Amino acid sequence: MKGCLITFEGIEGSGKSTQLARLVSTLKKNDCNVLVTREPGGTQLGERIRDILLDTRHHQMTPKTEVLLYLASRMQHLQEVILPALDQGQIVLCDRFSEATLAYQGYGRQLPLTQIRQLNRYVTGQQVPNLTLLLDVEVRRGLRRIRSRPLRDRLDQEKMQFYQKVRQGYLQMARQSPRRIVVINANENIRKVAAQIHQVVETFLKKRSR
Amino acid sequence: MKGCLITFEGIEGSGKSTQLARLVSTLKKNDCNVLVTREPGGTQLGERIRDILLDTRHHQMTPKTEVLLYLASRMQHLQEVILPALDQGQIVLCDRFSEATLAYQGYGRQLPLTQIRQLNRYVTGQQVPNLTLLLDVEVRRGLRRIRSRPLRDRLDQEKMQFYQKVRQGYLQMARQSPRRIVVINANENIRKVAAQIHQVVETFLKKRSR
Repeated sequence: MKGCLITFEGIEGSGKSTQLARLVSTLKKNDCNVLVTREPGGTQLGERIRDILLDTRHHQMTPKTEVLLYLASRMQHLQEVILPALDQGQIVLCDRFSEATLAYQGYGRQLPLTQIRQLNRYVTGQQVPNLTLLLDVEVRRGLRRIRSRPLRDRLDQEKMQFYQKVRQGYLQMARQSPRRIVVINANENIRKVAAQIHQVVETFLKKRSR
Repeated sequence: MKGCLITFEGIEGSGKSTQLARLVSTLKKNDCNVLVTREPGGTQLGERIRDILLDTRHHQMTPKTEVLLYLASRMQHLQEVILPALDQGQIVLCDRFSEATLAYQGYGRQLPLTQIRQLNRYVTGQQVPNLTLLLDVEVRRGLRRIRSRPLRDRLDQEKMQFYQKVRQGYLQMARQSPRRIVVINANENIRKVAAQIHQVVETFLKKRSR
């Protein structure tokens, strides 16, 4: 059987990486053939693009440049890693994918969504994720998780507003594709979130194997 | 008066860089306010993208990844360098621009032209070059100029065929936009090619200042 692509989405502090690691270990215990990967990056070339994207010296980077770099990384990732793994029947778990570009650059930075959707289609063609887990967390709680000091200055306020837009964007997409994008309540503790994810993925895999 | 964008296009060995340098010195002698730049690159971020594009270790790079990286570089270049220079009334001379992506990735690597045109539009918007000098050279002659050994093996044959497609693509675009894209016979010697370019640019600048 051809493999499947399961993507993890969510804002900072939603616990994506933690939960992804837990799911992998559960799936491996059940003898599933799993591949874990991430965006941006996932390939040698993609990691170099990731370095450019995350380099704080590039503060002049335009939002459209950012979108195009994410998409270049995704194109390479898909061709070199994801598609071959799917062909070999693997379950591919990917930390962020197409929805992230829509959420961050579209809803967050306010670039037109139609154009980003077209660009996503240019890159992924028919290959959309089979299942997307949206780890939804309140912005304040998410940001608290990833930093020690409290949020208070102007930049923090701007950041809060930005992530609010990203979060709402994600939720909007989940409403538009309710069968594929499943909202996980990520405000709970690690164990409870893991239990939700486990249940969703188990149901999904059972349906597939029928 | 708002500045203008003059781009140089052509295959390897067409003499773009040599001719660009000559034109700059002529224009500066005539007190023109000139800015010289190149693609990919032209900005700090763009030079990092250029490094990735020209790194021979990335032989797995897909043609679409290549297109997206060229466009990311162009986006940044336009925003950070070209548009501000045009606003200041400068004559911007650019070594390669949008037509290069169509010629190399479209005609050369056979990616659909319509999609590349859309991507170019996403990046440049209404900003097309005011004048494009297409330095047209026979492929064999061009390649002879940039290498010492004769062309003979299978890879050389493939390379020849690839550049034939690129050259024909460029000529096709010139036929489609005859007012903007001027074909320069670059088979001639440096001095004769420079004379052709000089005449075309002089006429163009005179018309503009009327």
